[in-house]
Amino acid sequence: MVNVAIVGVTGYAGEELLGILLKPPAVRITSVSAKIDKPLHISEIFPKFKNRIDLVCAQPNIKDIVADSELVFLALPHTVSMEIAPKLLNAGKRIIDLSADYRLGDIKVYKEFYHCEHKDKKNIPGAIYGLPELYRQDIKNASLVANPGCYPTAAILALSGVLACDTGLLDLTTIFIDAKSGVTGAGRKIAEGFLFSEINEDFKAYKVDSHQHMPEINQELSKIAKKKIKVTFVPHLLPVNRGILETIYIKKTKKLKAKSQKLITLYKKFYNQEPFVRICQEGVFPRLKDVVGTNFCDIGIQEEADKVIIVAAIDNLLKGASGQAVQNMNIMYKFPEQAGLL
Amino acid sequence: MVNVAIVGVTGYAGEELLGILLKPPAVRITSVSAKIDKPLHISEIFPKFKNRIDLVCAQPNIKDIVADSELVFLALPHTVSMEIAPKLLNAGKRIIDLSADYRLGDIKVYKEFYHCEHKDKKNIPGAIYGLPELYRQDIKNASLVANPGCYPTAAILALSGVLACDTGLLDLTTIFIDAKSGVTGAGRKIAEGFLFSEINEDFKAYKVDSHQHMPEINQELSKIAKKKIKVTFVPHLLPVNRGILETIYIKKTKKLKAKSQKLITLYKKFYNQEPFVRICQEGVFPRLKDVVGTNFCDIGIQEEADKVIIVAAIDNLLKGASGQAVQNMNIMYKFPEQAGLL
Amino acid sequence: MVNVAIVGVTGYAGEELLGILLKPPAVRITSVSAKIDKPLHISEIFPKFKNRIDLVCAQPNIKDIVADSELVFLALPHTVSMEIAPKLLNAGKRIIDLSADYRLGDIKVYKEFYHCEHKDKKNIPGAIYGLPELYRQDIKNASLVANPGCYPTAAILALSGVLACDTGLLDLTTIFIDAKSGVTGAGRKIAEGFLFSEINEDFKAYKVDSHQHMPEINQELSKIAKKKIKVTFVPHLLPVNRGILETIYIKKTKKLKAKSQKLITLYKKFYNQEPFVRICQEGVFPRLKDVVGTNFCDIGIQEEADKVIIVAAIDNLLKGASGQAVQNMNIMYKFPEQAGLL
Amino acid sequence: MVNVAIVGVTGYAGEELLGILLKPPAVRITSVSAKIDKPLHISEIFPKFKNRIDLVCAQPNIKDIVADSELVFLALPHTVSMEIAPKLLNAGKRIIDLSADYRLGDIKVYKEFYHCEHKDKKNIPGAIYGLPELYRQDIKNASLVANPGCYPTAAILALSGVLACDTGLLDLTTIFIDAKSGVTGAGRKIAEGFLFSEINEDFKAYKVDSHQHMPEINQELSKIAKKKIKVTFVPHLLPVNRGILETIYIKKTKKLKAKSQKLITLYKKFYNQEPFVRICQEGVFPRLKDVVGTNFCDIGIQEEADKVIIVAAIDNLLKGASGQAVQNMNIMYKFPEQAGLL
Repeated sequence: MVNVAIVGVTGYAGEELLGILLKPPAVRITSVSAKIDKPLHISEIFPKFKNRIDLVCAQPNIKDIVADSELVFLALPHTVSMEIAPKLLNAGKRIIDLSADYRLGDIKVYKEFYHCEHKDKKNIPGAIYGLPELYRQDIKNASLVANPGCYPTAAILALSGVLACDTGLLDLTTIFIDAKSGVTGAGRKIAEGFLFSEINEDFKAYKVDSHQHMPEINQELSKIAKKKIKVTFVPHLLPVNRGILETIYIKKTKKLKAKSQKLITLYKKFYNQEPFVRICQEGVFPRLKDVVGTNFCDIGIQEEADKVIIVAAIDNLLKGASGQAVQNMNIMYKFPEQAGLL
Repeated sequence: MVNVAIVGVTGYAGEELLGILLKPPAVRITSVSAKIDKPLHISEIFPKFKNRIDLVCAQPNIKDIVADSELVFLALPHTVSMEIAPKLLNAGKRIIDLSADYRLGDIKVYKEFYHCEHKDKKNIPGAIYGLPELYRQDIKNASLVANPGCYPTAAILALSGVLACDTGLLDLTTIFIDAKSGVTGAGRKIAEGFLFSEINEDFKAYKVDSHQHMPEINQELSKIAKKKIKVTFVPHLLPVNRGILETIYIKKTKKLKAKSQKLITLYKKFYNQEPFVRICQEGVFPRLKDVVGTNFCDIGIQEEADKVIIVAAIDNLLKGASGQAVQNMNIMYKFPEQAGLL
Repeated sequence: MVNVAIVGVTGYAGEELLGILLKPPAVRITSVSAKIDKPLHISEIFPKFKNRIDLVCAQPNIKDIVADSELVFLALPHTVSMEIAPKLLNAGKRIIDLSADYRLGDIKVYKEFYHCEHKDKKNIPGAIYGLPELYRQDIKNASLVANPGCYPTAAILALSGVLACDTGLLDLTTIFIDAKSGVTGAGRKIAEGFLFSEINEDFKAYKVDSHQHMPEINQELSKIAKKKIKVTFVPHLLPVNRGILETIYIKKTKKLKAKSQKLITLYKKFYNQEPFVRICQEGVFPRLKDVVGTNFCDIGIQEEADKVIIVAAIDNLLKGASGQAVQNMNIMYKFPEQAGLL
Repeated sequence: MVNVAIVGVTGYAGEELLGILLKPPAVRITSVSAKIDKPLHISEIFPKFKNRIDLVCAQPNIKDIVADSELVFLALPHTVSMEIAPKLLNAGKRIIDLSADYRLGDIKVYKEFYHCEHKDKKNIPGAIYGLPELYRQDIKNASLVANPGCYPTAAILALSGVLACDTGLLDLTTIFIDAKSGVTGAGRKIAEGFLFSEINEDFKAYKVDSHQHMPEINQELSKIAKKKIKVTFVPHLLPVNRGILETIYIKKTKKLKAKSQKLITLYKKFYNQEPFVRICQEGVFPRLKDVVGTNFCDIGIQEEADKVIIVAAIDNLLKGASGQAVQNMNIMYKFPEQAGLL
């Protein structure tokens, strides 16, 4: 039995996390908190939890959290996590941070894309990037897990299958990632651009090749490829609540053209033991419907004479946020990795 | 040629009005204004108007509006119209006010439902309720037209067909109006409740039997029936951009049961000359798709042994707001009533 | 451990049922079948089940079903269930039938609303109407459970709270039920009216006061009220995937006007022990978002001087179909009633 | 005044065409026809046209069409147009064909992508590809206009701005077109994949690099560039009714890197006189909302060190089909090019 606290329970990721953590018998939610005017029962904030959980949500109180829990999920906006995390780490707590605060190793990049100074540089080097498919061993003993961003999760899983095998197969100077995300990907932002009548029946690109998840993708792909990679990344806003689908275009190198083995075979082998990555049959491609509500990442691959097209899909709130956070918890506490996630 | 000004052009009704008024050759838009931080070209605010109109939108300047236009559309929130209208009327301008400020004859009711004191009581008695099907003659010479609310337009048209013929046919003590509206009905409100992810895949009742359009419906139905009518009115929020559909339940009286003539015949006769009211064939009922993008009100009637079910549908931004406003303009200036609206 | 078969797994209800039944440890799915051209792995039909279940779906084979399972879920269109059910019952199997075939006690009514003769009259009297809130005791030992329709589930739960206490409180001659349903309520029908572009951004009434669920509502309310009840029932089609919300209008009688106790108190008391019925606080009303994905029925009540407005919401595929079927299974096999449903 | 016939009025393009052609005073619709079981008033098929047009729609009768009209719009599925077109051309009629039958110059390509033999090879060479921005002069006197496909319209306009200026600026071996379309793009197809509950809240790629519009794009770009071009084209299905947005990725050549002039300037100059192409300001990108309901193609351009990202958006039923057809008619009959389209 592990006692957990959720800080930032009122955002989409926090709400989702709460829903998942109600299920597994080995988890006890001891505290839920958020930036909130006055304490409220969770079921007053989210009527859907009525008759299911009876905790009161108040402003986070570090002392209480430390006393009541051993694992803390921080489902907070970036810059807020790094104010709370050091206090919890000092008190010996383990943390899974869903914000971007501990994902980027380079604080100059952090500053450039998040427009602020990092206030907890000390804990960055010890943070483990929480993508189980790449860092499962490190996650087991981590004190601070930096849970990956939603777009990066899909992009990195889509490309690791080939990069981890042989970086010479693809022309890594031309990776074009055309990403499409449902609206909850942006969090519960109250702004004109997120009104129903603005998004319904609309579709658009935004932050063209300048999104803050791009350096996270570059950092992780570069680590795998062991050379500097800089992708082109264009996100688009889909008029759906949940789900991310990314279509990735890359040119082949001569090496791959000469190879007899198909890419899809490489991928199936690479992800063979992974409980949450599914490789589609040849000619089949992922769709949101098959992954929304699940922790799966589905990947489809089209291999042509001189290029490769890879399509990957996840639920941005599950494999792209809270589901992956619980997967990390399961690894940290040696629970079955799928507990609460099927 | 009539020179018109639009005050409040940045709201949904103002934006729609602008789109319509670009079409008829007999109208010149001389001024567009709104509560806005700094002057902007209309196409900067609404890129869809690029290459179509080149006016600058700034804060409303009464002096300029008076100098440049003879008819002013006020597409403003309630309480704002009544601050501007008297100045324009004093300068001899004609006004079509899309807010609720001049719709209710009884300022006590206004205060109860709009939670503020009326500041221009003087001009209320002279205002004409701008529902052409009932008040066309008065609209012709009106200085101040109070353009009806969206819900009331559908409800009043749905019930006038029978009430105007014989108020004894229905049991007027039990009129249940179950109304459903698309999201633009509420205006461009930036609030959590109007976020895409809150409304998409959701549906709910709101302001149950307490909506501010209810007294407007009661006032107008009472005028027609020449007796006090108090409907039950429950609005619901539909996950669509546009359109209102109301399903109305009423018990018959013995008089109607004894009558040989069908209600649908009464309706067809009553609306015979109306360009924008269409009565559905027996067994056919309106749907949003057939009225959205048009200025029509479609009405379907099911007559049973002891009760009547009436379904009415309009586009809340057209027949329920800006389309009706232009219809009123056409009447005021003796233009063909359908000009710009087909 | 109970061995279960799902017949009709390819429809919405069958697909949903499969998803639920994968969860509880005490259930083993031994057979999935459907009207299908050639046998296919379930994950070929529904890629979302890939890596989760590995059964092959083929045409239903009664002999195999009888051999492998003790409980059979029939998620079939009406008229198909009654061809299979007798064979299974004769072989001593228990059945939860999600079709309408065994819901109506009166075969004349069945013929009128389902346009065909009933072919298994013999088993109708023994069928138990599977609404646990009303018939839990009977369900425990039932051989054949007639799982309620989606609209009736919401309507009957919305009205039982008051009818079961005192039928004299409301004027039962005027019950107006304005119902709105998501698209999966109609099953996976391939017809022009269910195309995306026909339903998206649309809303309409259909089968006005003539829907086949109306006699089911009348039958059950009459049983509770111990007098003949005939409701007015108008369903509408919502542009959402899932969820039903019904707004019900009824006049009070003098008796209720004279009563000191509030209706909401009666409801809270009546449903006090029910795990899946939640009564909203005064002034709060259900919305789809709070029930979709759950087996709850949320009920809100507005009591006014001379009338009552009741709003009820369920997920049509869960409490309105497959969730309720599993709830019935749990009761039949003495499992915890919420197993697999939270 | 021109007398026009619409053949295939019941499809999305035909319905849209009818709506547009009701507006301009210089057009008289003399005949509407479609594959239909029995003759019906247009308002029985599309209630939205009630009180607006009173023609009867029946099976197309070539003799009557020839007698009554001088211009015929064929809004038919491919393979059907080529059976009717020769008869009309022989009778001296002018045709605007919205199908794909006369778009491809190479019948082998036609066969490969449309899976059938072409039956009217004779008229292919004389057909004019109806993209006014490229072929306005030829359209003026055309007898047979092959109205472009929806995806090709956006793709060709997005790329012509640079290709028509200098084909050496971009690496034409790597043109990746990531296209997203609303559902009406596929026509009114009654198939499981187009059901509301299949598309709503979903998103997916389809016909990955094998869509029949790809050879049309290749043919036209090759003509402009005067060299063989083969794009990579991946279409996706958006859960919206209307609109296409394409995001295009291309590498720069050294020539463009060395150039002082920005691409956006080239585009503004190239499309300077075009009434229906709008180039976005730097840093601004098109969105569906701004083009849906209009005949505009909006284009946004992001120029980076070594690559270019171009985003283009149109309404698939207007600039991508019926709007463009009317634009072609306006050119053929020397009407103002924007008549009926603003």
